[in-house]
Amino acid sequence: MFEITFQFENGASEVKFSAAPNTTVLDAARAANVAIDAPCNGNGSCGKCRVKLVEGSVESVPSHHISQEDYDAGWRLGCASKIVSDVTVMVPDIASAYQSRMKTADLSTGEEIAVFENLQAQIKNAGVEFSNRFVKLAVSMEEPSLDDTMPDTERFSWAVQETSGCEKVELTFFAVKKLAKTLREANFSVQAIGEQKDDVFTVYDVVSGDDAIPLCGCAIDIGTTTVTGVLMDLENGKLLAKASSGNGQIRYGADVINRIIEQSKPGGIKKLQDAIIKETLTPIIAAMCQSAKLPVTRILRMCIASNTTMNHLLLGVDAGPVRMEPYIPTFFRWDGLKAIDLSLPANPNARVLLAPNIGSYVGGDITAGAFTTLIWDKDEFSLFIDLGTNGEIVFGNRDFMMSCACSAGPAFEGGDISCGMRATDGAIEAVSIDHDSMEPTVEIVGELGQKPVGICGSGIIDVIAELYRTSIISSKGKFCREGSRVAFDEHGMGRYILAAADESAAGREISITEVDIESFIRAKGAIFSAINIMLSSLDMDVSVLEHVYVAGGIGSGINMENAVRIGMLPDIDRSLFEYLGNTSLAGAYAMALSENADEKVHELAANITYLELSTNPRYMDEFVAACFLPHTDSSLFPSSVQE
Amino acid sequence: MFEITFQFENGASEVKFSAAPNTTVLDAARAANVAIDAPCNGNGSCGKCRVKLVEGSVESVPSHHISQEDYDAGWRLGCASKIVSDVTVMVPDIASAYQSRMKTADLSTGEEIAVFENLQAQIKNAGVEFSNRFVKLAVSMEEPSLDDTMPDTERFSWAVQETSGCEKVELTFFAVKKLAKTLREANFSVQAIGEQKDDVFTVYDVVSGDDAIPLCGCAIDIGTTTVTGVLMDLENGKLLAKASSGNGQIRYGADVINRIIEQSKPGGIKKLQDAIIKETLTPIIAAMCQSAKLPVTRILRMCIASNTTMNHLLLGVDAGPVRMEPYIPTFFRWDGLKAIDLSLPANPNARVLLAPNIGSYVGGDITAGAFTTLIWDKDEFSLFIDLGTNGEIVFGNRDFMMSCACSAGPAFEGGDISCGMRATDGAIEAVSIDHDSMEPTVEIVGELGQKPVGICGSGIIDVIAELYRTSIISSKGKFCREGSRVAFDEHGMGRYILAAADESAAGREISITEVDIESFIRAKGAIFSAINIMLSSLDMDVSVLEHVYVAGGIGSGINMENAVRIGMLPDIDRSLFEYLGNTSLAGAYAMALSENADEKVHELAANITYLELSTNPRYMDEFVAACFLPHTDSSLFPSSVQE
Repeated sequence: MFEITFQFENGASEVKFSAAPNTTVLDAARAANVAIDAPCNGNGSCGKCRVKLVEGSVESVPSHHISQEDYDAGWRLGCASKIVSDVTVMVPDIASAYQSRMKTADLSTGEEIAVFENLQAQIKNAGVEFSNRFVKLAVSMEEPSLDDTMPDTERFSWAVQETSGCEKVELTFFAVKKLAKTLREANFSVQAIGEQKDDVFTVYDVVSGDDAIPLCGCAIDIGTTTVTGVLMDLENGKLLAKASSGNGQIRYGADVINRIIEQSKPGGIKKLQDAIIKETLTPIIAAMCQSAKLPVTRILRMCIASNTTMNHLLLGVDAGPVRMEPYIPTFFRWDGLKAIDLSLPANPNARVLLAPNIGSYVGGDITAGAFTTLIWDKDEFSLFIDLGTNGEIVFGNRDFMMSCACSAGPAFEGGDISCGMRATDGAIEAVSIDHDSMEPTVEIVGELGQKPVGICGSGIIDVIAELYRTSIISSKGKFCREGSRVAFDEHGMGRYILAAADESAAGREISITEVDIESFIRAKGAIFSAINIMLSSLDMDVSVLEHVYVAGGIGSGINMENAVRIGMLPDIDRSLFEYLGNTSLAGAYAMALSENADEKVHELAANITYLELSTNPRYMDEFVAACFLPHTDSSLFPSSVQE
Repeated sequence: MFEITFQFENGASEVKFSAAPNTTVLDAARAANVAIDAPCNGNGSCGKCRVKLVEGSVESVPSHHISQEDYDAGWRLGCASKIVSDVTVMVPDIASAYQSRMKTADLSTGEEIAVFENLQAQIKNAGVEFSNRFVKLAVSMEEPSLDDTMPDTERFSWAVQETSGCEKVELTFFAVKKLAKTLREANFSVQAIGEQKDDVFTVYDVVSGDDAIPLCGCAIDIGTTTVTGVLMDLENGKLLAKASSGNGQIRYGADVINRIIEQSKPGGIKKLQDAIIKETLTPIIAAMCQSAKLPVTRILRMCIASNTTMNHLLLGVDAGPVRMEPYIPTFFRWDGLKAIDLSLPANPNARVLLAPNIGSYVGGDITAGAFTTLIWDKDEFSLFIDLGTNGEIVFGNRDFMMSCACSAGPAFEGGDISCGMRATDGAIEAVSIDHDSMEPTVEIVGELGQKPVGICGSGIIDVIAELYRTSIISSKGKFCREGSRVAFDEHGMGRYILAAADESAAGREISITEVDIESFIRAKGAIFSAINIMLSSLDMDVSVLEHVYVAGGIGSGINMENAVRIGMLPDIDRSLFEYLGNTSLAGAYAMALSENADEKVHELAANITYLELSTNPRYMDEFVAACFLPHTDSSLFPSSVQE
């Protein structure tokens, strides 16, 4: 065994770990619980796992991600370097910038609360009722005596029956376990927390007479990259807490395909399930409950929205067939799931609703999201685009809806891009470039004066659009002007330097390479060709669109003008575009709170036609045609011109 | 910290453990997972935790259980000895003879199988149907293709619906998790294991087309001292496996009162629940499944019969109020429990039926047991006595039934008796004494030539009856003859020596002391006075009895003649007595197998009147009168005479 010591650029305490000879640095880091991103799951293609040798040596496979200069400075890819001696490596901040940390939202400004109030108002306006049947019922009963030795369950059930007027009372096991103690501590005057439905009162919990903690619902969006949750008051929908964190599965790959490959290995199903439930959802829910000052058992109803692979991995259901022709998931919808089935921190009887899937690549995040866009309530045609780790599209109106997915890859969230990162502190989120000087002006997420760490999706759109507008790159994405900001490596591959090593927080140059641009062009091409195929399959074109809703992790900083300029979104009136943020979470919020919303989403899902692109003979041609800036058919983008 | 080394008489490898100064030897043994019985939970009263000093010293409180001679030989009570140096102690076999080891029954002789066949036949004869709705259904379906991308759950549900003819199909989460893999491995020809009820087919499991393993039920009797389980084929009730072991809670006290005290301490509920579920039931069920060669998930229906305290501790429900006036349990009956709720090894959706309680001290073991006696199906009056760690009595016929409990203590199972043990290998189970020579003839459980380790309940009845018959002891239980078998200690307390130190396997004298006799007289007095009070409360006496059924851990060796002689059972025609063995297990077996039996037991429980003895003003007088050999009113026992 060799000892590997991880040091951290950010000054965190070093971590020591014993590794068998020939273990890769990445595997050792995973085993030692050191966060190093590996969106490609360690196959050497993403280049994100680079670390710097401080002492000792490793045996590394050469990589185009490590230039000779970098190599000489000690940089190595963690996944391509085997430990062959005791060794010390430095982990740069960028190595874990892609995976976000737990973050609990500050609700004190009221902004977040207002977002969900507005959402609720809009959905109500479309005729969806916001109600559930959870109640808190004060019940008192006679204390037992030697002449009245009825057991607690019967005494309590009679009292609930009498007070509620329900014909039948059912007690959950959780409530029964607390009953003796709670009744006696509260002198037999307690509150029954339960659901009143069809003349049956189901008691979920029993609490003291003076308990004033609200009944609580929980909604969670499980993104492939990021997981976000909210707690709401089941009585009125008021936001009680919000938190987010990276999806713990990310160390098994950035995209769903790599995760499915990983879960298909022995023990993989449990490993992936643990990564989402134990490592991600449990701390998020705990943090929210702590922030809202309530016990997790006060969560009585949950809804989870996620793509098909994510919800299969969450449930511990084999996602293998999702990846292979004919792409069959185990389930579209799943009723009757309870918190106890998944060991989620909540009342064990809390129902866990799942936003329904409609295909292997159009999941609950899209059905829940499409619900919140209200396109199903409008006469005019709308397009809904969710730019998550993949891209999904829904088109339609109140009469019909159609959906498809395209494998855009994780580029929109900073994956597959050498200096890419999520839209968190230090991310370059907006860029403009002066035509003559070729100098960039950048906006960075975080406090003023923050040095850049990397670049996020909206920043990448901007820089590519600006490079194209200023003719620094061609419509094929190749560098065609020279200047101090443009450099070429030993293989002749060009890059645009957004920040030199001394200008960046990471101490490493932040640049966009031709490989990055190519990756991104493929991603945007996938989106645009999907839109095009779907509309033409209906004998329509982009002129029918009256709303274009953009959602997803690309961030609110998205510049629609630039997104059109690079040929990602159709060249139509910019006022028709609207960025909606996390529609998956918004839909889950509505479903957790409202039985009617839950039904409506299931109804929508049943009515959306799924268009399979991967087997569509025209898709590959359309895709290839879209892999230019803005498109091989420039008449589709009259407003995208070069200067 | 001092090091304590445990050596074992039986030659097992020694165990070393670090203990803080002043820890008792018993506490150190518990922490080190060394089995030393302490039925009294370490308060010095039972005398079972004796160990022998080999090296080092301990600080011991004197005890009447340790004579000067024993003390000089190094014997100490583990609970009364503090560790004050590094020390080595020897643990004699007797120290863990009270707590039995796991034992899987050998079914190859067919005897055990026949017992349950007969039981089933008898109960059927009383009009109880033996049926349940579990079936194994072969279902085949079309394989999916790009033109038929229905998800697995829908494809499978349709096939089950079509094959079963049921209107609705419900899939359990457990089945869904296996679905993708099982369907594909079996080329979409599988078997659905499920329950067909009211036109709904609930799928519990999905297995390959050629799976021939039977569907399985599991019945368990949780005794305070011993836990016994059986597996049966749900189709025909055939016994598939049987196993028993000591109740892991025994280290927290031999009787329910000490266990309740222990569970009322912080963390106690979980500790006691773990001791029964994780340490006792889980290994028993695993052993049975291994013996029957089936996966635990093939268990689809379970029934547990146990006393009220045991089933509260099993469920993790506070048993505290059971112990304190007005003695209120949380529940009598509990429906809707599933294996997943208790983390029991079984199909997670397997229902866990509980034999219903009818009072804090008359539990499911008695209702299930009373069911199997069929006293509810007879015109004539029957008495049912369960001699477990406590004594419970049911009296009645097809028109009415009444029940009560008496705190007989653990004497019938060898507790509270200095050399007492359970009826396992090495136990003296039968004794006769020659009047003139006063020499005993003993029968010992186990192979011929086995030296005795201790004495079990039936042996104690015999020895006391014989000592009384031969006038060696008086009707007060005091020694009144002298001889080589009778000895007196320095305090003048007499004892009868059944085996001298060199005749016993433990290397220690096996004797019955006046204290033991007194304990046992109290126990038998509790039983007889309870019978007497119950009958007289109905203006009846023992002459009405036409059947007396004796059940419980006292063992099949019970000599009814001797039981009458000491005044434990009423002095009536001996042919009316019948020993039934473990009726609680038998009742659980019937309930696990038959829905009709389950209903019937619940119906019985609702109809048995519970007589509370502890608040009965006459009970104490009756009890005191019964604490003689055979009774202060000798006219009640005309056949019990001294020679």
